[in-house]
Amino acid sequence: MTTPSTPMSTDPVLDAGQLDRINTWWRAANYLSVGQIYLLDNPLLREPLLPEHIKPRLLGHWGTTPGLNFIYAHLNRAIMQRDLDTIYVMGPGHGGPGPVAASWLEGSYTETYPDITQDAAGMRRLFRQFSFPGGIPSHVAPETPGSIHEGGELGYALSHAYGAAFDNPDLIVAAVVGDGEAETGPLAASWQSNKFVDPARDGTVLPILHLNGYKIANPTVLARISPEELDHLLRGYGHTPHYVEGDDPTQMHQDFARTLDACLDEIHNIKNRSQDGDTRRPMWPMIVLRSPKGWTGPKEVDGKKVEGSWRSHQVPFTQARENPEHRAILEAWMRSYRPEELFDETGAPIEAIATLHPAGDRRMSANPHANGGALLRDLRMPDFRDHAVAVPTPGTVTGESTRVLGGLLRDVMSANMDNFRVFAPDENNSNRLDAVLDATNRAWNAATVADDDHLAVDGRVMEILSEHTLQGWLEGYLLTGRHGFFSCYEGFIHIVDSMFNQHAKWLTTTNSIPWRRPVASLNYLLTSHVWRQDNNGFSHQDPGFIDHVVNKKPDVIRVYLPPDANTLLSVADHCLRSRQYVNVIVAGKQPQLQFLTMEQAIEHCTKGIGIWDWASSDDGLEPDVVMACAGDVPTMETLAAVMILKSHFPDLRIRVVNVVDLMRLKDQKAHPHGLSDADFDALFTTHAPVVFAYHGYPTLIHRLTYRRANHANMHVHGYQEEGTTTTPFDMCVLNELDRYHLAIDVIDRVPRLRDVSAHVRDELRTALIEHRAYIREHGEDHPEIRDWIWDSTPTDPAEPTTPGSR
Amino acid sequence: MTTPSTPMSTDPVLDAGQLDRINTWWRAANYLSVGQIYLLDNPLLREPLLPEHIKPRLLGHWGTTPGLNFIYAHLNRAIMQRDLDTIYVMGPGHGGPGPVAASWLEGSYTETYPDITQDAAGMRRLFRQFSFPGGIPSHVAPETPGSIHEGGELGYALSHAYGAAFDNPDLIVAAVVGDGEAETGPLAASWQSNKFVDPARDGTVLPILHLNGYKIANPTVLARISPEELDHLLRGYGHTPHYVEGDDPTQMHQDFARTLDACLDEIHNIKNRSQDGDTRRPMWPMIVLRSPKGWTGPKEVDGKKVEGSWRSHQVPFTQARENPEHRAILEAWMRSYRPEELFDETGAPIEAIATLHPAGDRRMSANPHANGGALLRDLRMPDFRDHAVAVPTPGTVTGESTRVLGGLLRDVMSANMDNFRVFAPDENNSNRLDAVLDATNRAWNAATVADDDHLAVDGRVMEILSEHTLQGWLEGYLLTGRHGFFSCYEGFIHIVDSMFNQHAKWLTTTNSIPWRRPVASLNYLLTSHVWRQDNNGFSHQDPGFIDHVVNKKPDVIRVYLPPDANTLLSVADHCLRSRQYVNVIVAGKQPQLQFLTMEQAIEHCTKGIGIWDWASSDDGLEPDVVMACAGDVPTMETLAAVMILKSHFPDLRIRVVNVVDLMRLKDQKAHPHGLSDADFDALFTTHAPVVFAYHGYPTLIHRLTYRRANHANMHVHGYQEEGTTTTPFDMCVLNELDRYHLAIDVIDRVPRLRDVSAHVRDELRTALIEHRAYIREHGEDHPEIRDWIWDSTPTDPAEPTTPGSR
Repeated sequence: MTTPSTPMSTDPVLDAGQLDRINTWWRAANYLSVGQIYLLDNPLLREPLLPEHIKPRLLGHWGTTPGLNFIYAHLNRAIMQRDLDTIYVMGPGHGGPGPVAASWLEGSYTETYPDITQDAAGMRRLFRQFSFPGGIPSHVAPETPGSIHEGGELGYALSHAYGAAFDNPDLIVAAVVGDGEAETGPLAASWQSNKFVDPARDGTVLPILHLNGYKIANPTVLARISPEELDHLLRGYGHTPHYVEGDDPTQMHQDFARTLDACLDEIHNIKNRSQDGDTRRPMWPMIVLRSPKGWTGPKEVDGKKVEGSWRSHQVPFTQARENPEHRAILEAWMRSYRPEELFDETGAPIEAIATLHPAGDRRMSANPHANGGALLRDLRMPDFRDHAVAVPTPGTVTGESTRVLGGLLRDVMSANMDNFRVFAPDENNSNRLDAVLDATNRAWNAATVADDDHLAVDGRVMEILSEHTLQGWLEGYLLTGRHGFFSCYEGFIHIVDSMFNQHAKWLTTTNSIPWRRPVASLNYLLTSHVWRQDNNGFSHQDPGFIDHVVNKKPDVIRVYLPPDANTLLSVADHCLRSRQYVNVIVAGKQPQLQFLTMEQAIEHCTKGIGIWDWASSDDGLEPDVVMACAGDVPTMETLAAVMILKSHFPDLRIRVVNVVDLMRLKDQKAHPHGLSDADFDALFTTHAPVVFAYHGYPTLIHRLTYRRANHANMHVHGYQEEGTTTTPFDMCVLNELDRYHLAIDVIDRVPRLRDVSAHVRDELRTALIEHRAYIREHGEDHPEIRDWIWDSTPTDPAEPTTPGSR
Repeated sequence: MTTPSTPMSTDPVLDAGQLDRINTWWRAANYLSVGQIYLLDNPLLREPLLPEHIKPRLLGHWGTTPGLNFIYAHLNRAIMQRDLDTIYVMGPGHGGPGPVAASWLEGSYTETYPDITQDAAGMRRLFRQFSFPGGIPSHVAPETPGSIHEGGELGYALSHAYGAAFDNPDLIVAAVVGDGEAETGPLAASWQSNKFVDPARDGTVLPILHLNGYKIANPTVLARISPEELDHLLRGYGHTPHYVEGDDPTQMHQDFARTLDACLDEIHNIKNRSQDGDTRRPMWPMIVLRSPKGWTGPKEVDGKKVEGSWRSHQVPFTQARENPEHRAILEAWMRSYRPEELFDETGAPIEAIATLHPAGDRRMSANPHANGGALLRDLRMPDFRDHAVAVPTPGTVTGESTRVLGGLLRDVMSANMDNFRVFAPDENNSNRLDAVLDATNRAWNAATVADDDHLAVDGRVMEILSEHTLQGWLEGYLLTGRHGFFSCYEGFIHIVDSMFNQHAKWLTTTNSIPWRRPVASLNYLLTSHVWRQDNNGFSHQDPGFIDHVVNKKPDVIRVYLPPDANTLLSVADHCLRSRQYVNVIVAGKQPQLQFLTMEQAIEHCTKGIGIWDWASSDDGLEPDVVMACAGDVPTMETLAAVMILKSHFPDLRIRVVNVVDLMRLKDQKAHPHGLSDADFDALFTTHAPVVFAYHGYPTLIHRLTYRRANHANMHVHGYQEEGTTTTPFDMCVLNELDRYHLAIDVIDRVPRLRDVSAHVRDELRTALIEHRAYIREHGEDHPEIRDWIWDSTPTDPAEPTTPGSR
């Protein structure tokens, strides 16, 4: 296959010396890569290769590695020649041996891990530790110096790269996209990222599409469409593609060097034009590298093609320990790199190697952007108290919690216009955070027309209808030392479940890596939540992201359910200041009752859980029932149930417990925020019935509390996967989270009520039926529900409580 | 903006009568759409519009609807003219009023819902029910005749369309892709689906990219790149794009009709060539429709642009009840469609309307492919017993469970070469299902080269490295009445968490829709599971999909953990025959011990849970301890722990309970498969300690059993989010699921052992430490672990059990 070439000189750009030096680096990196995959011992092959020198279990991926090393060598030349600030994102991150080899050659590996010295003993340890118990992972991992991109799940290379480039105008992020990865949805979407780049303010992503043709067992789509079709596709993505293809190293070195120079020249020109004020989106350059899978590896093993085939994907042959012929192939393969020319007597890289890579922070394996915590600056935080909603008495005034938060985010934005961005899948305004557009615009570098709203090349509100791309951008932004905030409809945040997994695992792992400095937390605001998807219906209703999140390590997970605007402000302030967490905040956007003054909110959020005395009627005595609530709608319904109950049973001792910080429910041994048993029992008692109204799936509350003394008495109401397009109150009724079901449950659970309150129970059931009838007739909730407010004066029990009786 | 036109005549193709008729349909559908969004009453506007005629809560999406209706009208003309078999997939499915209006006009709505008659009373009910409590959802939903694609989460229109087209050679699936949806990852990836289509055997997807320019509050990327760039992109996706753009209805009708004819001619030619044997991938035609958002709606409201703006996205103005000016705008807007010409005295569509749509099954709203259960044929099932692994005694021979399953899948494939496919993200062979390639090939309609493995245009193994695309294909395939099987690495199935949600919700909803016939279950095989991701490491380890799945309605969820090959065969046979479920099967691919004969396996799987007498030592008496296990690795470790315990405590009464069907643990009130309390207690007792080794996160077992009498005595071992690249046994040790931790836990939990067995506990701890030391020295598990088999002869207690002491 040939590709339509960008017209370009084909003259050699490397003289013989340069060519030899680049190839030397490549040979060394490849040698060290093969050694990591195969060898336990005899790292320099100074003895004949024996079975005991070979690992008993061979793990790792060779196929992509020589390509990654090839690009590394060329990037190093360019960095030195142009003094570039460059990091390297490797989409095919299962090629873990490559960057480890490079880091060792550059000296940064030994600086980071002093035990892995630059000598024969260190090389032996380098080889041995790879994919070895107690050693390092087989993929590019948090342990790998210079990486912000784990070789786990595929698809996020480009979005991570763009996240790193935002607000780093002088940074060039070289991002290799594997042709396997290119088939994934997240990667396919992320090509559009270039419409959100400001050439003046942001850095540059240089995508390198690596067509090595095969995945695990299949060819790749992009390697098997016609060159014309591929060229169309890449131009359609907004790039000017440059092609390098072949398998002859000499020719390929010349071609790649020339192409990289051309791309960097183009980038330089674009940046210059942008400094002159022309920040229109250019057709950014990119490279297509078509090279054999497992390049420079064995051509054939057992009569079957290996180089240039899917058989190179992992370990190209696995019987090197047992089978002398395989062992001979391995030895010949490794010796083909001529290790005796690459490493000196001590086993250290020869001195010439040091001339092949930049020094200090310019080394891609030591670039501080790839250890973002090292660059992290605290946000300049405005006083969130300035945005407080006045709450003269609890539960009587309404506010839109997320709109209030929008004001805080606007002020955070204004104070941090260089290292803070907000992210939303076309939902920023729908989520009522539009105040942030007073401080900045939406990032947009595509065509605009009259009547467009707040679009600008240098906007800092990131909106694309791809949760994957947003999450990838945000991760890249955080991992390079900045701050961000992601708002999303609760139901659709599951789209990034798997990306969340990868990021949470990254945080967990880096917590044990001292040289990785803490990064800012990843903050989610989940809104348009399950209880207010009455408009969009069943397909939009899912509160299960919390369940997904709490499966990850407690030390990186926080979940907050602020019941109103002031608590949301306090929680958001806390989250924006935090490090190394994933913070999940769930809060509604619709007008809703406000409960706590700012002062009360701060105190309540600081404790994370507490008794609301003003709503309780236990007078500090043992309660007849604990009514617990977590989430804004459950809190409102609980308070309404309390009022119903008080009106019927003025002497009932009700304790209202509100939970903001969900992890407080966990055992203190199981989560850093967990309550001690004594503190938990002081709130929930050890024997009183607990009627718990929870925002999400009820089972989670049981899960969090199953070890508690009073667990058997907990009766949790939450989302039961019942829903459709209906009214907000009907959503509660369908899932038995409404005030009437809660009140009835209390009657059923409190022994002294259970047997004497049949008439009240019946009355409440009637009220429910009448409310539903009203809803079905009028299409909206009864004003009694819509206009309900908290009234601490007990109602006269004789007063009717059902809509039909008015 | 102008677009590069495909050279084509611009002559009118519709005569005046045809033009008028098509426009009549469009006016009628638009009128009915607006009526659904706004009106409670006065459906035909035979009285002046009063506030009480307008819904108090206005819900729905107008913006995309006129475009959907426009396309519908034109497809109808083509269907009639060419007698096409066509279904319509609407990516912008929030435009729910459109297809409901069309179905009502075509008569299928009244056939399906007899209460919604084709007269004024029926029209009133049609309007009233939309987005109304007790009525129908605001989006295209399972309730919508003719739909296989819910207007929930965006991104799946094309993959659903391709799934529907596979193996339906005469079907044309018109698939509208919204320009918002086009930004999502899943949609971006699914354009590559055309590389997997056999023009001879499969139907045709006709993508219609609808550029109406705006999302909720932002412009769309594809509407704002240059026409040249867009053209590149679509050609890069493998299509020949045809452009229709404008806002003048007369011109647009002519242009769209001409363009649709041209596309259908191209499709006809491609199909003809394929019948002549040329099945090479053509550049399939597609249409780009650029039309105003909210087309034909009010131009301006309150001085702000509405038609052609993001302000048309949902309800274009919301004060029609309260604000007389808005109400006047609404009335004028609706009257602009001239309802008096569209509906007769009774309110029925005028007779001419019936000439504008096809009849019977040709109506898109009544096409049986969109109610796939109606077409569903049972799979021809081979006898799974033929694949039985011989198990002379339990736990002594090894087998690769999924490889055995591969044999069954091969036979299922051979017997069902027209309505069964298997799906995998480049993991079919990695998951050891390669036997299926004896019966068919991988679908591949792109370039091939020598050394390619089992690629063919008519292959039935679907492999692309996009879990999203595969899931979408499979859903489309199932919803149109066929069968499938999806194998995936367990850790990465979270990529489709959100798609699973949408499909499970579809199944739940259709369970209450009598006219929706049951479809085949969606079968997942999760393999390369958490315990055997010792090679790929932490990023690949996540058993949480089960937790995610069980949040959905119990009536559509099944989870199976077969412990060996014969149980896997039995489970798979059951799942492949089932309907309306999502079946999740978790089973390993590595060589592992086999426990049950085929006969025992069938009995065990039929019960779903049971005591393994051969492994137990309770002799039918009350046990000292119940050792429960679910999953292949936990089962093996449990049995190994039993052997350790027996060797030390020959008189210890151990009961081994194995769980295949995880839902058996649930209460019978909570899940159809749930055990009664009596049956549960008979297995787990009400008081003995239960040491439970579980495949996934331990909390799930607590969650499933928290209501059981013996819950407080359950001690669950499972994945604790500890992992790295290490050995299989070390993975168990890191998470305390290994035989030693299990045995120690038994000692700690059984009162009569607890205080007298310190020396045994110490010995086991020492064994653990020595095993880990061995692993770290040798890089693999001790042969004692690797070669461990079940031995029912009690070991001499004096015999050493630690590697160091041998």
